[in-house]
Amino acid sequence: MSDDPRLSPGMREQLELGYVFGGLSTFGQRPFLTDPEQLDEWSPDVAIVGAPLDITTTNRAGARFGPRAIRALAYEAGTYHIDLDLEIFDHLDVVDFGDAHCPHGDAAAGHANIRSRVAEVASRRIVPIILGGDHSITWPAATAVADTYGYGNVGIVHFDAHADTADIIDGNLASHGTPMRRLIESGAVPGDRFVQVGLRGYWPPAETFSWMREQGMVWHTMQEIWERGFQAVLDDAVAEALDRADHLYISVDVDSLDPAHAPGTGTPEPGGLTSADLLRAVRELARRHDVVGMDVVEVAPAYDVSDLTVNAAHRLVFEALGGMAARKRDNAG
Amino acid sequence: MSDDPRLSPGMREQLELGYVFGGLSTFGQRPFLTDPEQLDEWSPDVAIVGAPLDITTTNRAGARFGPRAIRALAYEAGTYHIDLDLEIFDHLDVVDFGDAHCPHGDAAAGHANIRSRVAEVASRRIVPIILGGDHSITWPAATAVADTYGYGNVGIVHFDAHADTADIIDGNLASHGTPMRRLIESGAVPGDRFVQVGLRGYWPPAETFSWMREQGMVWHTMQEIWERGFQAVLDDAVAEALDRADHLYISVDVDSLDPAHAPGTGTPEPGGLTSADLLRAVRELARRHDVVGMDVVEVAPAYDVSDLTVNAAHRLVFEALGGMAARKRDNAG
Amino acid sequence: MSDDPRLSPGMREQLELGYVFGGLSTFGQRPFLTDPEQLDEWSPDVAIVGAPLDITTTNRAGARFGPRAIRALAYEAGTYHIDLDLEIFDHLDVVDFGDAHCPHGDAAAGHANIRSRVAEVASRRIVPIILGGDHSITWPAATAVADTYGYGNVGIVHFDAHADTADIIDGNLASHGTPMRRLIESGAVPGDRFVQVGLRGYWPPAETFSWMREQGMVWHTMQEIWERGFQAVLDDAVAEALDRADHLYISVDVDSLDPAHAPGTGTPEPGGLTSADLLRAVRELARRHDVVGMDVVEVAPAYDVSDLTVNAAHRLVFEALGGMAARKRDNAG
Amino acid sequence: MSDDPRLSPGMREQLELGYVFGGLSTFGQRPFLTDPEQLDEWSPDVAIVGAPLDITTTNRAGARFGPRAIRALAYEAGTYHIDLDLEIFDHLDVVDFGDAHCPHGDAAAGHANIRSRVAEVASRRIVPIILGGDHSITWPAATAVADTYGYGNVGIVHFDAHADTADIIDGNLASHGTPMRRLIESGAVPGDRFVQVGLRGYWPPAETFSWMREQGMVWHTMQEIWERGFQAVLDDAVAEALDRADHLYISVDVDSLDPAHAPGTGTPEPGGLTSADLLRAVRELARRHDVVGMDVVEVAPAYDVSDLTVNAAHRLVFEALGGMAARKRDNAG
Amino acid sequence: MSDDPRLSPGMREQLELGYVFGGLSTFGQRPFLTDPEQLDEWSPDVAIVGAPLDITTTNRAGARFGPRAIRALAYEAGTYHIDLDLEIFDHLDVVDFGDAHCPHGDAAAGHANIRSRVAEVASRRIVPIILGGDHSITWPAATAVADTYGYGNVGIVHFDAHADTADIIDGNLASHGTPMRRLIESGAVPGDRFVQVGLRGYWPPAETFSWMREQGMVWHTMQEIWERGFQAVLDDAVAEALDRADHLYISVDVDSLDPAHAPGTGTPEPGGLTSADLLRAVRELARRHDVVGMDVVEVAPAYDVSDLTVNAAHRLVFEALGGMAARKRDNAG
Amino acid sequence: MSDDPRLSPGMREQLELGYVFGGLSTFGQRPFLTDPEQLDEWSPDVAIVGAPLDITTTNRAGARFGPRAIRALAYEAGTYHIDLDLEIFDHLDVVDFGDAHCPHGDAAAGHANIRSRVAEVASRRIVPIILGGDHSITWPAATAVADTYGYGNVGIVHFDAHADTADIIDGNLASHGTPMRRLIESGAVPGDRFVQVGLRGYWPPAETFSWMREQGMVWHTMQEIWERGFQAVLDDAVAEALDRADHLYISVDVDSLDPAHAPGTGTPEPGGLTSADLLRAVRELARRHDVVGMDVVEVAPAYDVSDLTVNAAHRLVFEALGGMAARKRDNAG
Repeated sequence: MSDDPRLSPGMREQLELGYVFGGLSTFGQRPFLTDPEQLDEWSPDVAIVGAPLDITTTNRAGARFGPRAIRALAYEAGTYHIDLDLEIFDHLDVVDFGDAHCPHGDAAAGHANIRSRVAEVASRRIVPIILGGDHSITWPAATAVADTYGYGNVGIVHFDAHADTADIIDGNLASHGTPMRRLIESGAVPGDRFVQVGLRGYWPPAETFSWMREQGMVWHTMQEIWERGFQAVLDDAVAEALDRADHLYISVDVDSLDPAHAPGTGTPEPGGLTSADLLRAVRELARRHDVVGMDVVEVAPAYDVSDLTVNAAHRLVFEALGGMAARKRDNAG
Repeated sequence: MSDDPRLSPGMREQLELGYVFGGLSTFGQRPFLTDPEQLDEWSPDVAIVGAPLDITTTNRAGARFGPRAIRALAYEAGTYHIDLDLEIFDHLDVVDFGDAHCPHGDAAAGHANIRSRVAEVASRRIVPIILGGDHSITWPAATAVADTYGYGNVGIVHFDAHADTADIIDGNLASHGTPMRRLIESGAVPGDRFVQVGLRGYWPPAETFSWMREQGMVWHTMQEIWERGFQAVLDDAVAEALDRADHLYISVDVDSLDPAHAPGTGTPEPGGLTSADLLRAVRELARRHDVVGMDVVEVAPAYDVSDLTVNAAHRLVFEALGGMAARKRDNAG
Repeated sequence: MSDDPRLSPGMREQLELGYVFGGLSTFGQRPFLTDPEQLDEWSPDVAIVGAPLDITTTNRAGARFGPRAIRALAYEAGTYHIDLDLEIFDHLDVVDFGDAHCPHGDAAAGHANIRSRVAEVASRRIVPIILGGDHSITWPAATAVADTYGYGNVGIVHFDAHADTADIIDGNLASHGTPMRRLIESGAVPGDRFVQVGLRGYWPPAETFSWMREQGMVWHTMQEIWERGFQAVLDDAVAEALDRADHLYISVDVDSLDPAHAPGTGTPEPGGLTSADLLRAVRELARRHDVVGMDVVEVAPAYDVSDLTVNAAHRLVFEALGGMAARKRDNAG
Repeated sequence: MSDDPRLSPGMREQLELGYVFGGLSTFGQRPFLTDPEQLDEWSPDVAIVGAPLDITTTNRAGARFGPRAIRALAYEAGTYHIDLDLEIFDHLDVVDFGDAHCPHGDAAAGHANIRSRVAEVASRRIVPIILGGDHSITWPAATAVADTYGYGNVGIVHFDAHADTADIIDGNLASHGTPMRRLIESGAVPGDRFVQVGLRGYWPPAETFSWMREQGMVWHTMQEIWERGFQAVLDDAVAEALDRADHLYISVDVDSLDPAHAPGTGTPEPGGLTSADLLRAVRELARRHDVVGMDVVEVAPAYDVSDLTVNAAHRLVFEALGGMAARKRDNAG
Repeated sequence: MSDDPRLSPGMREQLELGYVFGGLSTFGQRPFLTDPEQLDEWSPDVAIVGAPLDITTTNRAGARFGPRAIRALAYEAGTYHIDLDLEIFDHLDVVDFGDAHCPHGDAAAGHANIRSRVAEVASRRIVPIILGGDHSITWPAATAVADTYGYGNVGIVHFDAHADTADIIDGNLASHGTPMRRLIESGAVPGDRFVQVGLRGYWPPAETFSWMREQGMVWHTMQEIWERGFQAVLDDAVAEALDRADHLYISVDVDSLDPAHAPGTGTPEPGGLTSADLLRAVRELARRHDVVGMDVVEVAPAYDVSDLTVNAAHRLVFEALGGMAARKRDNAG
Repeated sequence: MSDDPRLSPGMREQLELGYVFGGLSTFGQRPFLTDPEQLDEWSPDVAIVGAPLDITTTNRAGARFGPRAIRALAYEAGTYHIDLDLEIFDHLDVVDFGDAHCPHGDAAAGHANIRSRVAEVASRRIVPIILGGDHSITWPAATAVADTYGYGNVGIVHFDAHADTADIIDGNLASHGTPMRRLIESGAVPGDRFVQVGLRGYWPPAETFSWMREQGMVWHTMQEIWERGFQAVLDDAVAEALDRADHLYISVDVDSLDPAHAPGTGTPEPGGLTSADLLRAVRELARRHDVVGMDVVEVAPAYDVSDLTVNAAHRLVFEALGGMAARKRDNAG
């Protein structure tokens, strides 16, 4: 980035100061764009969008501070991906497009603003990566992506402890437990375009799983992963994703990770994935599939310890970027 | 539970409020019974009993607050066990029978009260699940169970980093490092009824292991698990347990978990089980064997982070309940 | 309480076990009543009501867990008030009346339920003490009290860093920054019945203070307290409260305390009261005035350290109970 | 700020999103300028500069993350100063001028860069407010200010537990324990221009105090404050500051606060100021004197709890801004 | 210390390394003596003794780790007491005499060993300063001191939230709530030799206060301090102590401090002393009276934050040493 | 140790008190030697040396407190290695040789002192085990070892997330990111004597890996471990180490562990080793190879939770000691 003529020398310096604990806290020390016209001017491959909304959570709150914490982490030792053997940002132009406005206590307005800010990105065929916020934000975010690529043309691989396919929770249709049902019902992402990974615990109830089965949804529980090993399940999930749609949206609830790896989240469920597994899964998907959108949600810093979860969320985005960069390099080669 | 005629409408509501952060903090939002006669009236399958005693610990204290913390967690997203495909409480009637009185600084009195409160439960052929407290509470608790089913008729699968078979520690016969020796010596649970899983580290000394061998005890170290994989060892442990006694008592020291999964405990030892492994092990045992008692001990909230350990303890009980419910369903089928 | 014939022996024991870290977590180990009819049967002086609602906060969330944390603290070394020279519960019959149902993400329903549960208490001329929850709960709670004693007949002494008299926040009329405006507008508690103590910082804006002045509100800033000393200001506040209405409602936002004394809250503002000051103020008011309702709000355990704030909240209620008990004793004398 | 034509609509929105947990983390949600020419274009009254350097600390490190943490706090309920009755930013144009480059492990280079970045500000007669970093940064920062106003023309009121007048520490002339000596020796700020407030504990040794006395330095220990009260000492300190120089630089080490109020610092010393005292002192100085520079140093987030110290540091700057705004308003009036 | 011929060059260096985070963790980097004969050889003025026993606590445990944490803090910026204008260790020879053996779960044995280790010190007319441990350790510690100076010849100034004069707690005569009763009953320290400072809250009950009155005990509650100011009360306490006995033992429970200043303790009670007050009180007593023993108890690191309490405990000892050094200097002068 | 005639009875007791939370905090409760001559007198097999230097870190600081924290942990349940079936200290004489002097802010002086203190140990053919400090300390430490055994005669197995082979970081040749390059360049440990395990993430850049390849370095990334399993990779690493040099130095950066297992470190990188894996690897190497030196670095207690990382570091040394003891026993047998 250091010789990008679109940045003033002072701006370049401030972004780079992330390396020494200072400067502007933007995601990965990338340029911060504020207005849609700047997206036209820059025409990046990927734009980060924050969605600081957490008022639909059913247990511990705090994901409202997720985007800020992930950006504040902005320390970066380097951007060369060891396993992929590439400088991520040599192949992929990434910007930080700021946050959607999520007003206090008004989930509907927040969701509308998220949809419209993500649409500014997706409609330009720039890949939005959304930092939650709670999982309800996937409804507007993935809808905005489907609006561009066509309803039914986008599949979702969804990492989570919970299926998030409830119909309604305490009267709320747009809860963090219902986004996948809404996407299916609206046709934005039909049920048979879904692959879920990491389910465990005691929710949702049996009738919801029946409904999911009827929709053609596919899921891999932790029990299956425990029995077959993660590599085998991941291979299946990648294949299933490729089968199901031309374009892929990845939705990562950090509670798919075991609480030992991601304590800073709202509804932790023991017995989850390791960070090693999840990081590789995301990278592999991004490398093998045409990713057109992604979110990382449910990072609640107040419950985090030593930035474990914030750090994991940051790296999950980096692995996706690495995979996308490698795909672009390989396709160009 | 919501239409149980034994509960007043207000009591039903208060128990259910656990779903929205409120109401009475009982284990899993189950009814709280206080008097033995209520056990007769309700005749549940399982009764939770707290044993808030921690004055025999040899390193960090604090397990006195274990039962309270596990109950205060009482948030519940659901009670449908995904992997077992059943609503736990449709098959199993579970109540919270409160705590044994563990007076300050008087381990002997606490142990006596634990034995007698657990006996109130076990003597009615209700399965007691005891929330510790330090591991010394297994002596009175398992004795009370053996009193009902007959000395020698109950086997113990014991998950722990430490064998807890010392003879005496600093003059203390009823330390958290000695309960298994006491059970063996009294004949309540003979040594050849024991299967231990998770041992590691630097204690007890060689002579204790010799004594254990003489008693016919069986154990599986983390080293063995590391070499053979947990599934293989678990299969052995289940088979050994079935061989050894008609009835099973499960004793879970949360320090069998790796400290990354259970930091909130008194004597953490790196290199332990994952929560995924331990949750499955407990469920499998409960499903395959006639469980007549269980304890989960050494949860020290002051050393916990983000409720990792409290959460794990809560789920360990839920997995046992799930396994017991599945066994009951399958046997009924 | 130990010989109260309305409690079974087992229930008495379980309540008393709070002394040794166990038993039922009710406020101050008081009996837990669940149904309104029990209020008739018991006819206590005071009933504790939880209001676990925090979705109107404008900064850090988490007060939803306030009531549970305050109850879980239930350790009690004693109930003899040293400075008042009385056994609190010898003079005052106090029960825990559980929580109002505050469904996920639906502030309106929660507020309605809070109003109705508090009304069950207040309409029986029992004094409700409400544990928040965020400060929005004062609107329904104080309204329910005014419904009983008559609009205009209840004054409020309000301890807070913030006046909470905004008209509307991000479209929300029932935010935690607006309850006092709502009470004034509805006539439940006219502006000239208000005394505010502890204001500081940078909010609300000048026009709000103008409006407050027009309503006849009285307030004492930390600046005034810093200049005149707390004792002098407290004397004024007590006198003003006595002047303004026959009955008193005390509303305590724990952020009136300095963050050093109450870090576990949503909108901490440095430069506040010490716990010594606030405890005495509450006691003095309760002793000198006819308190008919009280709330303690904005306790957010996720941001607390070593239970500083939870502990302070618990003691604030105890000081109010102590003051009320002394008043009853002195009036009886 | 919302209609400032120099900001694009998108930039305005992103800055304002600090109110709802999002957007750019700049100090107080002020515009972030990166290049010196922007200072000419904007010509603000005050510019915030970060100095993330902490490698000269003699106990706990971590102040390198101070500027980032103070900015990340950027939640703002309002900007109306209650006690001063003014909208701070209506009277004072404030920008965030980013950070000086403080390379890893090279204190000399960091100090040079701090001096030069502060000089960019001060030389334009804009008031720099520097966020540390450890206290060594006061040497270059105050020197840069004195370079503009003339050696000897700037006085310093220095709040601290420690005099920071050592000659050399472990061979280091530019330690966080020596900046005041360096300023005095160079003539930038002669000793008789210094007023120190808050000294306590066991350092520096007697000979350093003798040297300080020879330089004409004035100091007020916590012992004096404890005996005479803070108001009296503050009155003296203000008067002394006015006597000593035409211009004032305020240097605030957060360890002047008691550790209960500012645990997140490197060398905490019990027995310090309350936040109420220090906030008022800073405001009063800024209102009564011509402040030409200020720093707030030694905020070490890794040792902070619940943002107590970060919050205090943020408010210390706000109180200075409030005082400066009031002075400007009053002088204009 | 650096040229003390009794220390080898390597030992001197290792002790001094406390200044740079290393070396041996002894109290204040003083020489660590292990055998009583070394006391004869060194003949110091003061010897630090640890008493890591916490099994008599009635709420949160953990003071067993108090001595270790206070020693591990051993960072020392200096040893010149600013307010007293003296180098503490130029006037006072202080050593660390290690810990008494407090075996697991055996309070009686621990108390016996504490008494005997303190006696090794006191009987040589060296002043023991005991680091607790819970408050029960004052019984054996102060008894050992009275054994030397004569029963009735030693007065105690006791800083605490609680009077600790219960007769028996849950059957325990040697609880942390009973030491003062035991000292009075045995005649070691008659009741009319006691001055208590800091009492507040709800314990002990009225009848205990009656008994205290009968014994001639004097106490100053926080309520009195709040009304009269700490200086006035301290002046009284110093005078009362001088009146009552030739020699003084100071017993400091850190819960005399407000929990904001000392969160790391077992039974925190809001509304206590500031560290500024308590530090000055201890120093003043040590300077004005012939201190022959002291303890600092109830430091529970697991509940501490950012070492607030550990730091305060360390400084409380330093203030006592400072006061004693000044007394010695002044008497010599 | 208890009958070692070189220790006085009191010293023996104080060292053993580590078992009950007290006494001297030395590593593993081993005797603390201070002067080189004592090394001659004792002639131990292994000497622990602390290197509390952390000023070369590029992200979070705090490893300066690593040695102190690891020693303060000194609780020890036992020293019998279950899997190796031996009492560690029956076969291996281990002492604590204190710390190297690492003056504030002067890395060069610290490095020189580390080299010289390690040389005191290594030159006597005693195995030094160095507790860091940041990773820069490996340069002087391993050089001191190579000085004894000959340049090129010592191989290094290096566990780390990062290769630490940068040439220069911000002008610093002796950074914590450069030690391996310095060792290779000086010839102390040629590149083809290195085996690295655990590399992952985004640093160093491609050109550094090219340089590493040219030097003949061998490395195993987490990606390889994820694909092949740790056992297979460990077998290779052991074989490679045996091939490469007669003597082995083990360098363990705790960030080779996953942050879930070692949060308390400066540059955490998700996706790392489990403690179970790393403990076994270290033991296996120590048993199969002639270990002549070892370090455990980058333990930063301020970022640790519940002592997870400190505990792991302590056990890593114990596993090395266990492996060395077993090798000695087996060779003797």
